[in-house]
This record gives sequence, structure tokens and C-alpha cells, in this order.
Amino acid sequence: MVAQADSEFLFEKVALIGVGLIGSSLARAFRSRRIVRQISVSARSQATLDRVLELGLAESAHSDPVKAVEGADLVILCAPVGTYDSIASVIGPHLKPGVIVTDVGSVKQAVIRDVDQYLPDGVHFVPGHPIAGTEKSGPDAGFAELFDGRWCILTPPPGADHRAVEAVTELWRRCGSMVEIMEAGHHDKVLAITSHLPHLIAYTIVGTATDLEESERAEVVKFSAGGFRDFTRIAGSDPVMWRDVFLNNREAVLEMLQRFSEDITVLQRAIRWGEGDTLENLFFRTREIRQGVVEAHQAGSFDPREPKADQ
Amino acid sequence: MVAQADSEFLFEKVALIGVGLIGSSLARAFRSRRIVRQISVSARSQATLDRVLELGLAESAHSDPVKAVEGADLVILCAPVGTYDSIASVIGPHLKPGVIVTDVGSVKQAVIRDVDQYLPDGVHFVPGHPIAGTEKSGPDAGFAELFDGRWCILTPPPGADHRAVEAVTELWRRCGSMVEIMEAGHHDKVLAITSHLPHLIAYTIVGTATDLEESERAEVVKFSAGGFRDFTRIAGSDPVMWRDVFLNNREAVLEMLQRFSEDITVLQRAIRWGEGDTLENLFFRTREIRQGVVEAHQAGSFDPREPKADQ
Repeated sequence: MVAQADSEFLFEKVALIGVGLIGSSLARAFRSRRIVRQISVSARSQATLDRVLELGLAESAHSDPVKAVEGADLVILCAPVGTYDSIASVIGPHLKPGVIVTDVGSVKQAVIRDVDQYLPDGVHFVPGHPIAGTEKSGPDAGFAELFDGRWCILTPPPGADHRAVEAVTELWRRCGSMVEIMEAGHHDKVLAITSHLPHLIAYTIVGTATDLEESERAEVVKFSAGGFRDFTRIAGSDPVMWRDVFLNNREAVLEMLQRFSEDITVLQRAIRWGEGDTLENLFFRTREIRQGVVEAHQAGSFDPREPKADQ
Repeated sequence: MVAQADSEFLFEKVALIGVGLIGSSLARAFRSRRIVRQISVSARSQATLDRVLELGLAESAHSDPVKAVEGADLVILCAPVGTYDSIASVIGPHLKPGVIVTDVGSVKQAVIRDVDQYLPDGVHFVPGHPIAGTEKSGPDAGFAELFDGRWCILTPPPGADHRAVEAVTELWRRCGSMVEIMEAGHHDKVLAITSHLPHLIAYTIVGTATDLEESERAEVVKFSAGGFRDFTRIAGSDPVMWRDVFLNNREAVLEMLQRFSEDITVLQRAIRWGEGDTLENLFFRTREIRQGVVEAHQAGSFDPREPKADQ
């Protein structure tokens, strides 16, 4: 390890608005890798603010986001995306020209719609989305290595300031991520199928199991290793965050859900009428995408933590 | 490690009919833990038979299952369940009184229906299902520790021979498993929700992604860490095995699929109409089942390999 001089800090003062899993992981990465000099946070509950200071994640912690952004040259929104509108309306007037605003929300078109309107001229908005996380929530759940080897997608609007985009890109690189620039609408479509629909389905099937007759429900937990366990993990993710994702990526999620429903109806019919070929053909086809995912891993692009599936 | 005397072998000669992931894992466990004295296998392809002998998994390998069961005091069906009917019809007349027949199939009522009719009096049938596996297939994919700490469900029909059930129970215990006795119909219902429906859904969503427009499909693989990757793993499972599971547990799978479809339709409507409370309420409820699964883990009942989910 080469020691970094103070002059190598990328930002002087970063304000994290919201400090759950992602926000607290960023704070830890900023600290341990000396990426920013000073961190202020804002959170709604006093318990979270106290905990953040106990954990040493920030120099200052404020219930008022206006206090947190004071003197910050980078502001990162790390709260559920449904809160962005009101946060932006509150902090907007207090942002000085030259400040960069970014975020970590799982949807991007709605975020641009909600945030951009409140930002004064000369404030640079560079929306972002790290494809990283766990099913855990809160400031205790974070860890500095969360973003290592993961993609972070940035969706700067047309005409975004080039240097601001470069600064946010460098921030994520120093956090260990690979950065991809993408149009916001395209992001929302791709994430609808790779993340939002899988979460919606996982929540649904775990809910279906919750409603089972008592005798079967106990055994669902006991024998969850048959595949169900993977779904319970995904369905253990933060409820408020995910509510906001679905409400704010409605069109793309409904479009993918409609396609999924058509496809599963075809399989349902094949099962009912004993059409084994229809099933087998699909099951062979899906192996190709799996192969692509495995190969992407081998190329070093993904997290190597690859668990075994159960049958 | 205490050395075991030869007299502690549980069976003198075991015939494995089919030697893929599960069959080859059993062969490895039988060998390394000295559970049986001698192993014969049967498989349909010469390549598999050659490979089994190369790997040293058996003393003898036969394309004809009748040759494999010759002199065996335990026969284990490890092929896709759709083949059980014809296998049983072929080997049935060659089984001597006192022989135990068991299997590893993921459905149990259909297996009893298909196999029992061909077994002569005095042959003991003890259907079984290890809740263990990976998404990989074939004799090279197996490993001796696959069953460690996993449940194995036995579904002996009413009036099954007590000593035969005990012998099969002991076999699985020596392979590292915990054994649960269950009625076959109940097994099929529980597995429909914990294993069969999750696999059907995973195959479906990966298929839906496969059909996406070209530009999006490439990025589905690239950004699969958002949740989709877990589904591709499950959907990489053996196509023929799973085709047979769905065709042979039709009623229970269709029943659970119907419930799932109703539940996801409610969420679809909630997303369309912006009803955040409906979403949030479900997402909080599903955390309870997740908690149950985590606690079952802590009680040492499950595989500790618990990967992180991504958002």
C-alpha cells in the first residue's frame, strides 16, 4: 500500500443524505480508502444519527439535511427514492454553484424528474446506481468492500458537466467499482428485468408460502434448501426502498411483468397438458444465459461469491 | 477418525441406476465413508459408464440395469423420474426377496405409482428424496459432502417394512443427512412450493430475458448481480430431470402456481395504481419467513453457505 497525501482526497466534504446499507458502506469506503476528507450525514431518526457517530462513520450527523450539505462539495442521496423529491426541494436552495449532487437509487428516470427541478444553475447532477447490496438494512449492515468489483451505472442527463461526471466516476473507481455510463431510460429497462422483477417475484412467492395452511408453512422453512431459500433472502430486502422502486419504475416493471406472465402461462399450459417438449426446450435454452453469466464471472467482472443451488 | 471394521458396512452391494450429480455423490460418500462394500452402476450412455470407471466410482458399470442389480441388496434409482416406470419394469423380475429399493426423485406419489407395481413380494420399497444438489449435472459434478447437514425425506407407503425403512434411514445418516419421514402426498405439496415452483419461476424469468431485444439482452448478463444471477443459477439445473418433475407433480405445481399468479396479479395492480401500502405490507410480512429460515440455519439445520443478495 502506498500512503496517499492529503492532496489526493477527491472531495473535501461529502454529505450523505440517508445512511443505510449503501450510505454507510460508502462512508466506510471513503474513510478506509481516504477518498474524502470529511463526511457529514443526515438521517431521519435520532437513533440512526447516534449510531452513525458511535460507529465513527461521520464527523457530523444532522436531522436537518440542510445542515448536512453546508459546505459540502459532493452530496449523495442514499435514502429511498420516494423521498428524493422532498429532500431535493429542501436542500436545493442551499446548494452553491459547483457542488456535485449524485445518488444511489435503483431507478433513474424518476430520480431525474424528481431532483433536477430543484437544483439551481451551476449545480451538477450525476445520477448513479451501484449494482451492489445485500438483503440487510441500516448503518450497521454496511461494509467498505461492498462495491469491490461491482458495476456502478451513471446516467448523466444530456449536457451534463463533463468534469462532474469524471469526478463521480473516479469516486466509484476508488470505491472499487467499474463504471458504466448509460441513458436513464435504458437503465430502467435493464434493471427492471435484472433486479426489479426478480425482487417482485421473490416477494410474491414468499408471500404465497406465508399464506399456506399452517402444517405446510412450518415445513416450507424446514425444507427451504430446495430453492426457496434463495427467494427468501431476496425477499428479506428493505421494504420501503423496494416499494419506492416499484412505484417509480412502473412502466418498465409492468412491461417485464406482462412478458413474464405470458411466458409462465405457456409453461402452466404445458404442465397441465403434459407437453414435456415445451418444458425441456425452454430449460435447455435458459442454460445459455447461465453460461453467459458464468463466463462474465470468469472474466473477473463479478463477485466470485457464487453459492450452490439446491434442487 | 476411528477405523471401521469391514463388518460395519451397511450393505454388501449397492446398485445405482443412473449416476449423475446425486448418484455419483452417493457413490463417493459410500466409498469415502465405507458405507457399502461394493458398488455397481447402470447408465444409458457408454461415455458415462467409462467415466464412472475412470473416476473409480464403482466396481462395475453396465448399460443393462439388470446386470447392475445382480446380487445387490440395495438398489437406488438415481435417474430422472420419468424413466422409473421402464426401469422398474425391467429390473423388477430380477429382484430377490429381501432386496431394498429406494430412490432420490424429487416427486414421490408418481414414483410410488410407477415403481411399486413392478416389485415382487418381499422386495421393500422405501422412496426417498435428498433435499440437496447443485445446478450442475453428470458424474463429474458429484462430491461426497453433498448431503452433509441436509435433510433427506423418506416416504414409505403404509405397511412398509420397518427394518427396511431403518436401513435406508441409517444409510442417509451415514451420508451426513438428517432424515424425516413423511406421507408422499404431503411431500409433493411441500416441495411444490419450496422447490418446484421456484425452479419453474427461475426458468421462466431467464427465458423472458432470453427473448429480450438484443441490446438489452447483453446487459442482462452484464448487470445480473442485481438479483437475476440467483435465478440463472437455479435455471441452469438439469433440463430433463426438471421436465420430469413438473410432469410428475402436476396437480401440486399447478395449485401453487395458481396461488402465485393470483398473488402477483394483486401486486401488478398495486404497482399500476400506485398503491404503495399494498406493496409495503407484503414486503414487511415476507421478512418473517426469512427470519424463520435464518433461525433454522442458526439451529444448525442448514447449509451455512449463505451468499449475499444483491439489489
